[in-house]
Amino acid sequence: MNFKMIHENYNVSNLKKSLDFYEKALGLTEKRRITADDGSFIIVYVANEKSTFELELTWLRDRTEPYNLGDEEFHLAFETDDYEAAHRLHEEMRCICFENPKMGIYFIKDPDGYWLEVVPAK
Amino acid sequence: MNFKMIHENYNVSNLKKSLDFYEKALGLTEKRRITADDGSFIIVYVANEKSTFELELTWLRDRTEPYNLGDEEFHLAFETDDYEAAHRLHEEMRCICFENPKMGIYFIKDPDGYWLEVVPAK
Repeated sequence: MNFKMIHENYNVSNLKKSLDFYEKALGLTEKRRITADDGSFIIVYVANEKSTFELELTWLRDRTEPYNLGDEEFHLAFETDDYEAAHRLHEEMRCICFENPKMGIYFIKDPDGYWLEVVPAK
Repeated sequence: MNFKMIHENYNVSNLKKSLDFYEKALGLTEKRRITADDGSFIIVYVANEKSTFELELTWLRDRTEPYNLGDEEFHLAFETDDYEAAHRLHEEMRCICFENPKMGIYFIKDPDGYWLEVVPAK
């Protein structure tokens, strides 16, 4: 018996806004989607060619209030082959929420406030 | 410029308990760790041979209260090559918190309450 990490799920309030954000900020595009027969939910898997791991974005029709992320002590990390260009892009998008120049990393937030870490590729 | 998803971070209250849980429940073992010079934090990366994606477990010495996970509308998903055996193991461990037999999936919780999805490999 073995286990393989295949995706991280984040529930999102505005699916189009999230899809636009993840494509523009991190190059993730839609791979497939599941739409409920009764229209109550849509699940979209986004990814790129760099790994088989996917981000699952779940939208719930009947959810009206913003998602409460609690202490926000969790995050999804991305490595990039061009840290300077990534930093410039995220500055322009005004989504940088924390920087640690000593460690050479920074964090951005997606439209729902989920923290995403950006680190240079080794 | 490209981006690759490399890890998901969960902050944990009891590092040993979490390491034991992830090894027993999901076959993830320690790959490397970072210990702060002043002892204020320990970060452990756990994974297995099935993918390069890692789970980052962060322990903070000065954190005393349990982590507030908010609405808990996020989770990390694992596929397994032996769904029946996985289900039996997680039943024995009493960590199953939700089942959807129609979809053929279930969810377990780690010691801090983080939701983890288990799905059969395709």
